[in-house]
Amino acid sequence: MVISPRGRCQCMDAGVKFIPPKQIEKIEVYPPSSSCQHMEIIATLKDGGEQKCLNPETRFAKNFIKTAQKK
Amino acid sequence: MVISPRGRCQCMDAGVKFIPPKQIEKIEVYPPSSSCQHMEIIATLKDGGEQKCLNPETRFAKNFIKTAQKK
Repeated sequence: MVISPRGRCQCMDAGVKFIPPKQIEKIEVYPPSSSCQHMEIIATLKDGGEQKCLNPETRFAKNFIKTAQKK
Repeated sequence: MVISPRGRCQCMDAGVKFIPPKQIEKIEVYPPSSSCQHMEIIATLKDGGEQKCLNPETRFAKNFIKTAQKK
């Protein structure tokens, strides 16, 4: 479990660098805010709805919207 | 209200082209799937939690992750 139920930031660590796009049901992007200084990206997986933090610094995260459009 | 509670796609239209980043609490990205053929992006606003569909074709949507990281 990498997501804390409460607290300032939701992700406890930097997050994974890659998730196979086909496994992703949705991605939530939380911009920096007063409760968490850095952006957080949380992916919900199709299989069972598991949530994973995705490292926003990765090329995969940066290009996710572009990549999904090419499908 | 631009978001339908049920149905194949969640957004009833293409969505808005821009939302001031400071108003955005989070953005949800739904890749194309069996229930909706095109990508959908739904922004939740800080003020009252209103949800708005954001047009995925816009430069604003494509660059959202990059832009948020620069904050």
